[in-house]
Amino acid sequence: MSTVGGDGDDGGCGGDAAQKTQWPGSLSDGGMGPGWTKVSCPCCVSERVEPLVLVQLGDQVRPETKKWLIRLIGAPVKDGGAALLAHPGEDACGDIIVVSAPKCTLLRATEELGLCKPYRSGDMAAFSYHDRDNFKDSDNMEVFLTLAERQHIVKYELDGVRAQRDLRIPGLPDSLALQQRDNIWSKLEHAGVILDTLPLHHQDKLKALSKAWYSGNQLTQPLDEVHSYFGGTVAFYFSFLEFYTWSLLPPAVLGVAITYFSGAVEKEAVDSVSGSDVPSDEEGSVSGHMVQAVFSMLWSTVVMELWKRRSASLSYRWGSFHLAERFAEPRPGFHGDMGVNPVTGRVEPLFPDWKRNLRIAVASVPVVCLFLGLVVLGMLGFYWGEAQVQQLHQDWDSLLSQTLLYLPSVAHIVYTNILATVYKTAAQSLTEFENHREESAFQNHLTGKVLVFTFFNYFAVLFHIAFYKQDLPLLRKRLASLLVVTQLVNQVTEVVVPFLVDHFISAPHRTEREDDPEEDKLRRQRKLPAFPGLFVEYIELLVQFGYLSLFSCVYPLTAVLLLLNNLTEIRSDAFKICKLFRKPFSAPVAGMGVWQIAFEILSFVSVISNCWLLLLSPRMRELSQEAGISGTNSLLLAVLLEHILIVTKMVLACLIPDEPDWLRKKREHIEFTSMRALGQQKQLSEES
Amino acid sequence: MSTVGGDGDDGGCGGDAAQKTQWPGSLSDGGMGPGWTKVSCPCCVSERVEPLVLVQLGDQVRPETKKWLIRLIGAPVKDGGAALLAHPGEDACGDIIVVSAPKCTLLRATEELGLCKPYRSGDMAAFSYHDRDNFKDSDNMEVFLTLAERQHIVKYELDGVRAQRDLRIPGLPDSLALQQRDNIWSKLEHAGVILDTLPLHHQDKLKALSKAWYSGNQLTQPLDEVHSYFGGTVAFYFSFLEFYTWSLLPPAVLGVAITYFSGAVEKEAVDSVSGSDVPSDEEGSVSGHMVQAVFSMLWSTVVMELWKRRSASLSYRWGSFHLAERFAEPRPGFHGDMGVNPVTGRVEPLFPDWKRNLRIAVASVPVVCLFLGLVVLGMLGFYWGEAQVQQLHQDWDSLLSQTLLYLPSVAHIVYTNILATVYKTAAQSLTEFENHREESAFQNHLTGKVLVFTFFNYFAVLFHIAFYKQDLPLLRKRLASLLVVTQLVNQVTEVVVPFLVDHFISAPHRTEREDDPEEDKLRRQRKLPAFPGLFVEYIELLVQFGYLSLFSCVYPLTAVLLLLNNLTEIRSDAFKICKLFRKPFSAPVAGMGVWQIAFEILSFVSVISNCWLLLLSPRMRELSQEAGISGTNSLLLAVLLEHILIVTKMVLACLIPDEPDWLRKKREHIEFTSMRALGQQKQLSEES
Repeated sequence: MSTVGGDGDDGGCGGDAAQKTQWPGSLSDGGMGPGWTKVSCPCCVSERVEPLVLVQLGDQVRPETKKWLIRLIGAPVKDGGAALLAHPGEDACGDIIVVSAPKCTLLRATEELGLCKPYRSGDMAAFSYHDRDNFKDSDNMEVFLTLAERQHIVKYELDGVRAQRDLRIPGLPDSLALQQRDNIWSKLEHAGVILDTLPLHHQDKLKALSKAWYSGNQLTQPLDEVHSYFGGTVAFYFSFLEFYTWSLLPPAVLGVAITYFSGAVEKEAVDSVSGSDVPSDEEGSVSGHMVQAVFSMLWSTVVMELWKRRSASLSYRWGSFHLAERFAEPRPGFHGDMGVNPVTGRVEPLFPDWKRNLRIAVASVPVVCLFLGLVVLGMLGFYWGEAQVQQLHQDWDSLLSQTLLYLPSVAHIVYTNILATVYKTAAQSLTEFENHREESAFQNHLTGKVLVFTFFNYFAVLFHIAFYKQDLPLLRKRLASLLVVTQLVNQVTEVVVPFLVDHFISAPHRTEREDDPEEDKLRRQRKLPAFPGLFVEYIELLVQFGYLSLFSCVYPLTAVLLLLNNLTEIRSDAFKICKLFRKPFSAPVAGMGVWQIAFEILSFVSVISNCWLLLLSPRMRELSQEAGISGTNSLLLAVLLEHILIVTKMVLACLIPDEPDWLRKKREHIEFTSMRALGQQKQLSEES
Repeated sequence: MSTVGGDGDDGGCGGDAAQKTQWPGSLSDGGMGPGWTKVSCPCCVSERVEPLVLVQLGDQVRPETKKWLIRLIGAPVKDGGAALLAHPGEDACGDIIVVSAPKCTLLRATEELGLCKPYRSGDMAAFSYHDRDNFKDSDNMEVFLTLAERQHIVKYELDGVRAQRDLRIPGLPDSLALQQRDNIWSKLEHAGVILDTLPLHHQDKLKALSKAWYSGNQLTQPLDEVHSYFGGTVAFYFSFLEFYTWSLLPPAVLGVAITYFSGAVEKEAVDSVSGSDVPSDEEGSVSGHMVQAVFSMLWSTVVMELWKRRSASLSYRWGSFHLAERFAEPRPGFHGDMGVNPVTGRVEPLFPDWKRNLRIAVASVPVVCLFLGLVVLGMLGFYWGEAQVQQLHQDWDSLLSQTLLYLPSVAHIVYTNILATVYKTAAQSLTEFENHREESAFQNHLTGKVLVFTFFNYFAVLFHIAFYKQDLPLLRKRLASLLVVTQLVNQVTEVVVPFLVDHFISAPHRTEREDDPEEDKLRRQRKLPAFPGLFVEYIELLVQFGYLSLFSCVYPLTAVLLLLNNLTEIRSDAFKICKLFRKPFSAPVAGMGVWQIAFEILSFVSVISNCWLLLLSPRMRELSQEAGISGTNSLLLAVLLEHILIVTKMVLACLIPDEPDWLRKKREHIEFTSMRALGQQKQLSEES
């Protein structure tokens, strides 16, 4: 059996694959010269090879290692290769490899990932390699698969390459020899042979996308193009951002109306109000605020349910509603004893669920709780320190003591930042330790952990003020300043700074190098900073949503401010991802994953918080005193209101179906046909 | 094309089917003479035909109608028949028809219903007619399908017969002529031609089952045999009853322990307690009761989650975990415009979901609310009336006024009963009006409606006492008496009376008729009262569960009483269904349906109720006064406890997977193979 590589065994990598011989023909749409590896099946021979992914090698990598790697990428799967196409860049000694994918590899991976594509009948259907001729455009990869899908498939194939037997990599020390079933790509990354694997931009498409996305005055985004160019996760983020922004319209309108009308009412009533250091127009009329609070509590559930439907429609449209990650190869970092997967019948590493659950229970949960405890401890320390220095300042009143007044805040900020950094590392290791089989499960668990901590970090102080100190004016002040400050800071860091950087620093560099060789253009894409991921973008939305829903009744104009902020946010985020960062890999996904849950939980917690704040509001207390309701009874009323609202939200969530009717029918039709097919197939395999 | 029946067209029902010619051969295991209709396919010709279902005709039915009906039952499906076997009983003029089913009909229906059967590989797999030879025992129907399944299939086929064109039924007036697509069976039932369709008992099997089920001292039930003889719904009820009974053990033990120990503690503390008209040992120690209340609140969630797992395992074991009711024919009562079902591609009546939802929203919900309002009104009227007669009795104090004291109770009971009867009719009509496509959806909606009302009826008074009157001693008294009285009444009506009836009334009749002709034996089964359905059995459990969970902290020995009650309940219910009623039809089901939801909702409501009762308890008030906690703060603590408990229950419910690990793997394996089959089949159909 011929396998790739082996100790110095240069010629043993399958006769037809990965020869150094360069085969003739015009080979690229980017003007690159010949030099692609041979494809292993005749149907994939093509006049034109599109560079999809750039592999950046370390400086110290020797030519024989590079040659071996190119051969590995080009070798067929049965020989332990990735069945892709590789190009050595300018010459065999350069530090890049450009990778592309032949048709067969793309189609097989499309089936393995469970992507759905338009069938002859016009419906979307899970792609099947055997049945490829019945899918529309299945002969033209650049139409059939989106750019992001093709790039994801290249990464998927590279990540999946495992050593078929123990072997030494040419040009590398023995300590880096591979053992059977080792994941080659991650091993090479750890060894510093591969520095980076990044998807390449397609400059023409990027220009067209930018123009349609954020240059004009358009109100909607070209989501299909975003999906096709940047892929599933990015497209879902921008879809949600748009959906969420427009869903702020009703509470914003209501907030403005209530503020306006209660302002008018307020002027008549202003004389009777006394002893409050808050301006009366912020106080508003209790009934108006209550209407708004109840409205936004129910609204948040309706919005999240409608988003679920929208999300389901999008995932149908984008062919990701039937992903088969469970049935595909496990993620590269997954390890376990080799065995037969009872679901797919393939031999692969297995790891029992109970072990994973045990690890979550005895390691992850306690560590996360510990860190949350440290956050609370930090906050308490901050309050204690603040009281101490205040006391000190009162006693001594000197310049030194005045400077000391800032110490607790500074110490708290430093403490929080260190904690956050340590926590991120811990979360990463814990999630690795949990050993999830699927990449999406890994991401969801990791995101979930960081999310809980970040959220706690943001809101601990506000909850402390609202529930423990019960100081409503302070809460209102904090909230207003946070909303304004956060948004200003965001706008500056996300719009102004990038704009300046692009116009005065990057742009001149770009024009300078216009007629550089093709390889330098590719290499320059690596010079941009890596895309930081969508976590920060989502958490920003979640925190906004938290301000809006948790404390909406103390600051009625929140929705208006957020609406304005988000309208610019869409553009600045689009600009960022197009121009300021490397293009990220983006897997096909069926929705927002764990963020959906986070938003839903928040919308339920908001009911508790709002009912409590209503109870605390001084006007409410006044009113209940006037009406002769005792403290206990008004508390009872608040609890009753809370229960009714929570039940109403639950009923609403159950009543609104999670997917539109047409989609349910299509899904059931697919279920029905595949159930029928199972019976048919058994019969046919019996006959043959 | 040849179709069944038609105006006097005696010979036009398909040459080979339903001839009056009696074909030779020994025909039954019940000793019945020849007379079965011919089977339409050669593979189904069998030496032995098992009588499965008895059709009782009206007295006035003329022989030609009966003949037509027998032909209809025997005709193949393509001719509009039911493709079953019919036997006219003693002669062509008798008022019964005995129905059986040939092999092909049984197998095809098994596929259509989506039943799973053991495959060659040992796993359960959805049965496929084409692949029948790979299923174990698929040539012997009496092993392959259970008796209950065969009987259900006969009913399913009979219910599904529709007129292929407008036709007059011989021997019936023109007003009863059939129109195309009319459901023949339900039309004949409405017309009084068919009085009853009942599954027949198999005396030997019944005897064996009785012996294994309730005659000995066994602690477990022969659930597989129950499932095989009585079918899915009945088997799930008894499985749940057993599971629930044993799950009462932990709270019962805890209850006894706490009562014992708190009794000891109580004696020391008894002097300090004063001003309470409740005996101190019923009061118990607060901490003990609180422990028990918290324990049983969490316990109820764990039990329901474990039951879900058990229920999933059972439905796998019994082959009903993959039912395809959505893909089968709609239920007989379903009507709508004819169209192509987008899921299955078959022509059938269609009814849009939004119309159904609209009907639920504008008709069902308001009517149910109206009736619930009437229950409350009745209760208020009762209290008002009671106050009035008390006043009257105080003022006048005569024999008449003393008699009048009973008037409100009597009036309330009469009112409640009338209301319940009217409501049941209303619920039936409303659910018919909602026009559900699947029988299970119909049953669940009907059960749901009756359930809400019945439950409200039972608990309105207790809730009134607990939440409005806040009279804990009265609640405790009511609860204790209800528990004892209900159980005594149940035991008497369910055990003693049936036993007496059976031994002194039925038994002599039975022996008398031992050597009657076979037909009389069959006919005698109809003499038994119809099985009243499992609703009353389930509601009894739900009400028990309600007493236990909603008010567990006022009466700690509830679990013990219920445990004792249920141990006899299992036997009495088993005895009832075996001996005292007609055998019911029972569809294959995957679980308890709507009852699962009812129990789960109740377990959440119980948290609110228990926290409230804890707050009200005089000892608690005393303790909080001693500790210097104000009323408002103790209310806050109770609310906090409630929220923590509800969140804990939700987390528990999420953490415990709804199906065991092995079952999830099997299910995913089925999904995987059917996904693969879909691709394969497309390819094969392309090639052919």
